[in-house]
Amino acid sequence: MKVETLRWFNNRLEMIDQRILPAAFEYLSYDSAASVAEGIRSMVVRGAPAIGVAAAYGVALEALRLSQHLPPGRGKDGMGVDFENDSTPSLTLPLQGGGDVDFKEGMEEGFKVLAASRPTAVNLFWALQRMRKVWESVAAQSPQQTAQRLLAEAHEILAEDIRINKAMGAHGAALLKDGARVLTHCNAGALATAGWGTALGVFRSAVEAGKKISVIADETRPFLQGARLTAWEMVQENIPVTLITDNMAGHLMAQGEVDAVVVGTDRVAANGDVANKIGTYMVAVLARRHNIPFYVACPLSTIDLSIATGKDIPIEERSVEEVKGFRDCHWAAEGVKIRNPAFDVTPAELVTGLITEKGVILQPDAQGIRKLFG
Amino acid sequence: MKVETLRWFNNRLEMIDQRILPAAFEYLSYDSAASVAEGIRSMVVRGAPAIGVAAAYGVALEALRLSQHLPPGRGKDGMGVDFENDSTPSLTLPLQGGGDVDFKEGMEEGFKVLAASRPTAVNLFWALQRMRKVWESVAAQSPQQTAQRLLAEAHEILAEDIRINKAMGAHGAALLKDGARVLTHCNAGALATAGWGTALGVFRSAVEAGKKISVIADETRPFLQGARLTAWEMVQENIPVTLITDNMAGHLMAQGEVDAVVVGTDRVAANGDVANKIGTYMVAVLARRHNIPFYVACPLSTIDLSIATGKDIPIEERSVEEVKGFRDCHWAAEGVKIRNPAFDVTPAELVTGLITEKGVILQPDAQGIRKLFG
Repeated sequence: MKVETLRWFNNRLEMIDQRILPAAFEYLSYDSAASVAEGIRSMVVRGAPAIGVAAAYGVALEALRLSQHLPPGRGKDGMGVDFENDSTPSLTLPLQGGGDVDFKEGMEEGFKVLAASRPTAVNLFWALQRMRKVWESVAAQSPQQTAQRLLAEAHEILAEDIRINKAMGAHGAALLKDGARVLTHCNAGALATAGWGTALGVFRSAVEAGKKISVIADETRPFLQGARLTAWEMVQENIPVTLITDNMAGHLMAQGEVDAVVVGTDRVAANGDVANKIGTYMVAVLARRHNIPFYVACPLSTIDLSIATGKDIPIEERSVEEVKGFRDCHWAAEGVKIRNPAFDVTPAELVTGLITEKGVILQPDAQGIRKLFG
Repeated sequence: MKVETLRWFNNRLEMIDQRILPAAFEYLSYDSAASVAEGIRSMVVRGAPAIGVAAAYGVALEALRLSQHLPPGRGKDGMGVDFENDSTPSLTLPLQGGGDVDFKEGMEEGFKVLAASRPTAVNLFWALQRMRKVWESVAAQSPQQTAQRLLAEAHEILAEDIRINKAMGAHGAALLKDGARVLTHCNAGALATAGWGTALGVFRSAVEAGKKISVIADETRPFLQGARLTAWEMVQENIPVTLITDNMAGHLMAQGEVDAVVVGTDRVAANGDVANKIGTYMVAVLARRHNIPFYVACPLSTIDLSIATGKDIPIEERSVEEVKGFRDCHWAAEGVKIRNPAFDVTPAELVTGLITEKGVILQPDAQGIRKLFG
């Protein structure tokens, strides 16, 4: 089955609710910047590239809504703006009539609430920047024309993301030998993108190229993206996949059961330091100890040249509730303090190669990364 | 509150059911070798030293039962022999009259079923060996006298375990500086022993010595001993404790938030290689990268001189059900393969020191370990 993580349907953005996968497969519907921002914050959609595409649609939806003088909507399923968490009260007020001033103010609010949804994934800011450029380029046009132009751009960002993933997949597949047992952490799959995936896109491309590979998926506490999403995607594709808890990766490497590691990333600094799901750093350190290549599937939109090193990448700390258990299952002892950093930084020196749509950069460093943009 | 993991009550062994902690605090009751073996297998009791004490009582209970010609019992709560899993059908048949021959055969069966309960913790075999020696030393006596002698030995093993833990605690506490933030993995606490604990015993002794330390507890998937048991024990003692998922330890070390690591062990080979809960090896590799001391609290009964190196330590693979979720909460995608090694091996070169009741062996190796027994 083809996984359509985000789709445009009936003038709304629909996103698979990744919080309930694989127990249930359901689309939620979004029709405003604030509702999309809440969907990103609450991790209905997650994964850096998917967040970027969602944000682009959020901007387009806000333009459509404002150009039609509609109140901020809620998803038809009751999802959408969570007023308790809504950081943009102004959006919850009916607009004072139409007109370009209100449109402009509303759009600025929309950009603001989307930018505030999650701090670590740079694709979010990359997509908002790209949408803003388009918006400014059509400033002279009517809100209705502007909204259509922004929607066209969001569609293009989605299509582009899939093209880029397939290009990365082809480059990455060449790095995996037939029969390779490849470990991945979290979910950098179709569910983390508009489709195909970054790390899992490499696996899909390898299989498409006739290579017999098998995947080892870390379960990835606390949100369990590996156990729920990566395992589910690989089962859908009939790619052999074995689930382990996060603390088993070192043992399997020591036993000689891992040939390579491929992960995704949420932001790469100008020097090649990689921010990705918490636990990625531990896998990288272990891969180095066991001389196992550690690859990062990284579209250019994930590289942030404005950030010199990983030290400057903001690391999101999420709610402690996520660590107390999972969903309605709580097991942590009462009264214990809890930490919940959602990401960590893997220094460039531990990265064997960055897999991009323009090719693979081995031993990435500031110079090699600059070349990509030259 | 003082945690009595195992206690002798009303001519039965009672053990805290660690599968339901911290949600519920309950004792289960055991009156035969097979029921104790099932309690060990199903992890009502876990932790190498606690398993050793439980096995010793299992032998004594079997002797009492056989000397009174009683059928194999079930715990008063319905726990005890699980006939589906019972590897000793002969124990479930009424004995053919009394007499020393039946007694001897019954006792051999009891030793066998206890030895088969879990493969990795050497304390189990150490305790059984010790009980067998006592049994052989009183071979001439009546079953009743033998049973009383074996029960006395079990009581002594329990008392000794607590004395040893306090001696280890004193030696280990000296290694921790005031204000130290100490990371531990799994539960090597009072719940893993007859009381006080090995790794957590070091923390208790440090606090008793007036040091302000704080503990970082890995949650320890899949059985969650860290989130459920270590966090619970430290909260009981008012020792500051912070819970993290297993994949966060590397990030905290990289952030400079960990001053030392102290863990327990299930078996140490003659060369100092350490078998402990799955994930311990990853913590050791990360500690080395960050120059953080990595200590193993290890009573002499956990050192197995008959095993040259960690490669020869049998690693238990447990049911895949444990990895699919926790208790009634299932989240793993249908159709995924699963691995569940319960332990891993940390090479001696990564161990800063073994904390034993006879003192600390720094950079443990075969020679240093032999000296302990000299």
